[in-house]
Amino acid sequence: MAEVEARIAALRAELAALEAELPPPVSPLARPFPALPEIAGVRFATAAAGVKYEGRTDVMLAELCEGTQMAGVFTRSTTRSAPVLRCEEALAAHAEAPDKAGKFAILVNSGNANAFTGGRGFETVDALREAVAEVLDCPAEKVFTSSTGVIGEPMDHGRITTTLDGLKRSLDPAASASAARAIMTTDTFPKGACAALDLDGVPVNIAGFAKGSGMIAPDMATMLVYIFTDAKISQAVLQQALWLENARTFNCITVDGDTSTSDTLLLAATGQADMPVIDDFADPRLRVFREALHGLMRDLAQQVARDGEGATKLIEVRVTGANSDGPAHRIAMSIANSPLVKTAVAGEDPNWGRVVMAVGKAGERADRDRLTIRFGDILVAENGWVAPSYTEEAGAAYMKRDEIVISVDLGLDNGSATVWTCDLTHRYITINADYRS
Amino acid sequence: MAEVEARIAALRAELAALEAELPPPVSPLARPFPALPEIAGVRFATAAAGVKYEGRTDVMLAELCEGTQMAGVFTRSTTRSAPVLRCEEALAAHAEAPDKAGKFAILVNSGNANAFTGGRGFETVDALREAVAEVLDCPAEKVFTSSTGVIGEPMDHGRITTTLDGLKRSLDPAASASAARAIMTTDTFPKGACAALDLDGVPVNIAGFAKGSGMIAPDMATMLVYIFTDAKISQAVLQQALWLENARTFNCITVDGDTSTSDTLLLAATGQADMPVIDDFADPRLRVFREALHGLMRDLAQQVARDGEGATKLIEVRVTGANSDGPAHRIAMSIANSPLVKTAVAGEDPNWGRVVMAVGKAGERADRDRLTIRFGDILVAENGWVAPSYTEEAGAAYMKRDEIVISVDLGLDNGSATVWTCDLTHRYITINADYRS
Repeated sequence: MAEVEARIAALRAELAALEAELPPPVSPLARPFPALPEIAGVRFATAAAGVKYEGRTDVMLAELCEGTQMAGVFTRSTTRSAPVLRCEEALAAHAEAPDKAGKFAILVNSGNANAFTGGRGFETVDALREAVAEVLDCPAEKVFTSSTGVIGEPMDHGRITTTLDGLKRSLDPAASASAARAIMTTDTFPKGACAALDLDGVPVNIAGFAKGSGMIAPDMATMLVYIFTDAKISQAVLQQALWLENARTFNCITVDGDTSTSDTLLLAATGQADMPVIDDFADPRLRVFREALHGLMRDLAQQVARDGEGATKLIEVRVTGANSDGPAHRIAMSIANSPLVKTAVAGEDPNWGRVVMAVGKAGERADRDRLTIRFGDILVAENGWVAPSYTEEAGAAYMKRDEIVISVDLGLDNGSATVWTCDLTHRYITINADYRS
Repeated sequence: MAEVEARIAALRAELAALEAELPPPVSPLARPFPALPEIAGVRFATAAAGVKYEGRTDVMLAELCEGTQMAGVFTRSTTRSAPVLRCEEALAAHAEAPDKAGKFAILVNSGNANAFTGGRGFETVDALREAVAEVLDCPAEKVFTSSTGVIGEPMDHGRITTTLDGLKRSLDPAASASAARAIMTTDTFPKGACAALDLDGVPVNIAGFAKGSGMIAPDMATMLVYIFTDAKISQAVLQQALWLENARTFNCITVDGDTSTSDTLLLAATGQADMPVIDDFADPRLRVFREALHGLMRDLAQQVARDGEGATKLIEVRVTGANSDGPAHRIAMSIANSPLVKTAVAGEDPNWGRVVMAVGKAGERADRDRLTIRFGDILVAENGWVAPSYTEEAGAAYMKRDEIVISVDLGLDNGSATVWTCDLTHRYITINADYRS
């Protein structure tokens, strides 16, 4: 026994040493980065400022032309970061006076989240905003900043401001792919999505990119998302559309249930398309726009789940038949955040009992005897027991897929929700625990 | 690179094969089983019925003398098992007529949870209760049963009922240690606690045991707790005392946030101590009894956290200064259930930023700039930033301990709560994911 234990310890040590040699593997669920269209009125630039690591791009600047309307949603964490708090202020001021002159800018850095840094955190944000405003000749109150990386450490904004002149010179409408890479921290692939649509004969484009979810260093995960369109839409309508679509997309993904202090989603509409403005929520063109926006946001959200730490399976959880949509969402999240459900999927184990458990613990109305559970199209359980037609073999074969759909019908009413997550694997532990400070 | 990857794959395969050879390791946080006192009026017996595995004790019977009062609390899962639902009915009937003649009995089996088994589940429980009633000559409605193990599979109660005659013959007041072992499933150590107290000159004993939290097979975890005392206490007072102490003990532990369908806690007071009955909640002796009961229940609860799947550290989370106790409890649970906090502790990483994150996501009032965070006695953060006196070296040294205390003061009001959990390690994944059906 002691020999076996000694051999195990030796193997573990060798394994850890070898794994440290390898670059972090790209998620097996990665998607190729699409060819994003240029959006009239938007230019990007990136730089390597050495915020934390030398020699990798860690700053992204986006410049948005005069007349742009901006919408945003942010983390609701009560310990959210200084950049997020300043973005909220800036957005509120913009909503009050949406036609105020001046360009917008978005500045993002990785390597330091500037979170939980006291009063100094605000000084840093303000210094960055002033510096961008001066270089780009835009109002400081129209500069939005995001920071992602380690928290609780003061951020040396001087490293970033010295790159601004160079950033300005390299602004390029075609640089969205490098912009998407610059905001990555420990993501294993860059995430982008686009849509081309027709608004009453006017061609309009939407392009967006996101980062989220890799954490090799013991830092905070952050989701950052930037979406751009040349559509002409009023701020109030743009904000409402973003808020509604966010509720059904980014608010429906979870990797580990741990909400970041820095999550930021911005949607900029430059208004460069030759179209009458959409300033009424009942405008039929908005429906077309929202549909395209929804598809793009869902795509990006799923890409974040696909790059969840240690992910080997993408899991879609569909809940129907709930009392209303709210309870359906909470039951879906209870399943998607359950460590026992997520480890079962990782082990390719069709362990539907754990789904029953996760429904039961959600704190929402459910009737055991009306539950129906499916893995993909396979009927697993109904009427309070395993379905007579179900076989473990069929369940086990389904679980070998890369993408798993778990459907639960509660049989109560018409409430429904769909959320996305990934499985929970050894690599999640390796990423987040195998560290000694 | 390909060579390194091939070597890693070979090492992993060898490691998995070797680990399968070893018996599941006992938790490094295990405590020795105490010498439990005999409780007048209580007798135990155990048997190997082969409910799931052959050759291990898997049935426990406790017989409680005439005059016993019973109290209980159960999982609030909406998908709770047939045994739990029947226990709830039995307890309600007992509370209505606490002086009805007849002995009580508790029958527990491991190997099958009899959960999500439709109408057949109730037939199984009823058959077991009738059989126990006949063998022990007690009313069927005074038989409480618990079942723990795999869910969704019909349970063959015949295997258990055939052991009942033998169980009756071997009933023994000194058999509590083997009773504690018989209810284990994949626990790595049996869990017991006791207290001797003096109620106005009358010596009284309390003894209890618990199971919970090992899951080598991909089954449901279940917490089962049985506590016995010879004190003479009315049902109403006993139930109220149990309910209150449960809120501060077992309801304050979490391993993975996944609530079982079968959690059951029973407290039986045989009334054999020579004392006037405690039938008033204001009786000063109740305070002494509750204090002893609280200590015993906290001890058992901590033992369950110590045997949490893959646990290498016991974590105590203390939240003070909240608006009230409810928000304090929810913030403490947000920290205790955070995979990022739990993996940081596993990695001995003093990553206080993750504690800030977990406070922020709890959905309760918190003011970043009033937060104070301590690891043990080490002041880590205050006034919205890292404390000037804090060093990573001090934090890292503290994290090497087996027992970690994370304290958060919110600086708002007087609400407080303390909860216990364990870290999240590779072994949790191994136990719950490294399985192919």
